[in-house]
Amino acid sequence: MARFEIDILGCGAAKPTLRHLPTAQVVNVRDKLFMIDCGESAQISFCRSRLNMTRLGHIFISHLHGDHCFGLFGMLSTMGLSGHTGEVVIHAHADAERLFRPMLDYFCRESPFDIRFNSISPNSSEAIYTDRSVTVRTIPLKHRIPTCGFLFEEAEGDRHLRGDMMDFYNIPTYCRSAIKQGENYITPEGKVIPNTILTLPPTPPARYAYCSDTMYSNRIIPYIEGVDVLYHEATYGDEAEALARQTHHCTARQAAQLAREASVGQLVIGHFSSRYRDENVLLAQAQEVFANTTLAHECMKIVLRK
Amino acid sequence: MARFEIDILGCGAAKPTLRHLPTAQVVNVRDKLFMIDCGESAQISFCRSRLNMTRLGHIFISHLHGDHCFGLFGMLSTMGLSGHTGEVVIHAHADAERLFRPMLDYFCRESPFDIRFNSISPNSSEAIYTDRSVTVRTIPLKHRIPTCGFLFEEAEGDRHLRGDMMDFYNIPTYCRSAIKQGENYITPEGKVIPNTILTLPPTPPARYAYCSDTMYSNRIIPYIEGVDVLYHEATYGDEAEALARQTHHCTARQAAQLAREASVGQLVIGHFSSRYRDENVLLAQAQEVFANTTLAHECMKIVLRK
Repeated sequence: MARFEIDILGCGAAKPTLRHLPTAQVVNVRDKLFMIDCGESAQISFCRSRLNMTRLGHIFISHLHGDHCFGLFGMLSTMGLSGHTGEVVIHAHADAERLFRPMLDYFCRESPFDIRFNSISPNSSEAIYTDRSVTVRTIPLKHRIPTCGFLFEEAEGDRHLRGDMMDFYNIPTYCRSAIKQGENYITPEGKVIPNTILTLPPTPPARYAYCSDTMYSNRIIPYIEGVDVLYHEATYGDEAEALARQTHHCTARQAAQLAREASVGQLVIGHFSSRYRDENVLLAQAQEVFANTTLAHECMKIVLRK
Repeated sequence: MARFEIDILGCGAAKPTLRHLPTAQVVNVRDKLFMIDCGESAQISFCRSRLNMTRLGHIFISHLHGDHCFGLFGMLSTMGLSGHTGEVVIHAHADAERLFRPMLDYFCRESPFDIRFNSISPNSSEAIYTDRSVTVRTIPLKHRIPTCGFLFEEAEGDRHLRGDMMDFYNIPTYCRSAIKQGENYITPEGKVIPNTILTLPPTPPARYAYCSDTMYSNRIIPYIEGVDVLYHEATYGDEAEALARQTHHCTARQAAQLAREASVGQLVIGHFSSRYRDENVLLAQAQEVFANTTLAHECMKIVLRK
């Protein structure tokens, strides 16, 4: 098990302020970087967070509103100038390739890496990326245009060897790797020692869910149930609940209700409307419902596993 | 005569740093705003400079490299959210409309103003905008792709009334506006007093020239001769002159040579390569050739007329 962290690059809403940048964040799983949304100026925040562009291979775009994707061209151009090679995959709604490809062909024609689009459907939850360390699934959300969130789920790790049993059976080092992966041990005398006696279960996989932009919908609960950290949009406060519904956004209290109903470990709220000069009013409303709530901010690092 | 100022929103080169934003600036002529180039994050710098988006009607793009135009989508989206109405004209190479129109149609479809493209040719100098206060002309530059600079020239103002002559001929107030505009005065006795006796010449129109990106070329001298302020790119220092030539950029010293040869009033250098942590090395090299040189920086205001 190793690193699983999230860097918040931007957590403002569509109308920019001097306090927040538009939405972007980076999930680091065992030093592979995955970007979620790429609002304007994401590349600057990326540098400020001292992240390594050459480790970024996948960009997940929740929906095609400008504040979630206008930073893509600058990001990809700079990745080219920074010596990124190989391939970068943009996971986004099918319209993205039609819109972005002509721009990328024109502006990034000297790019040293390939850009591939993976069209994602916002109607059902699908595993859209898997490697040895992590699986990324979509979460269908309810917004004005097709939108999905993303669930990052760590791969299950090895079982933990019981030191006392290793000693008791005098198990040679060369056998231990297989036992960690669930195999039984056969003594020199031919006796089978079941794996369950020799090991303890693996550490439960850490899970991170990103839900933005979306109106309140308890249909997403099955997808986010019990995650370690839920990042959820909280564009408005209680006083603007009607506006939230009208614009298909959430209030901070609604985000907290979801966090409670889904029994998540921690709630981080973001996508703050420019109308709030001090988002502590949103935090207070959320914490009335779900105590373990935090306000997102630029350059915030959320650590699920060090 | 009234305000003529330039706000520098970004003066870095293609590879972003935490010290500079990519190229963008705003020319304010009598409270009408004109943007030159629109690199990523221009809208944030625009807000930071406390400029009023509703006064911005024209955006001039020097060339279609990303660091000079990737901020356009965010800028235009936010102008829509800020209640801009009427029309915004984007003056740019002909490719711009083909590339940007599908993006704008998709992302700014609810925009309350129209966006019009004016295709500009970088091969010759043309007046591309004129109103009562200012004329904007293109300046052909030499870069890797078609590129032009821009010359902002104030309209000639009224002649100045000579107070002593107004008293001497006892000229009524209602006649003075016409005299300012060059008319003679006819006394009640029918005697014609020539305008040249009654007035002094208008204040010379202020002129601002923007030249970026470009390699050194003395062919631009006729276009910029005697301007009050020249903003010129100075991507590199002396040690990188070969690289400057190869990438069709300028050294600070070359920018200063142009400023001297064209007898400009003041030189402001910008478009600094990310390799320079302290641009004072560029400033020193330029000042050896042209003393009245200044380094651009974000939020700098250049005042030609208050």
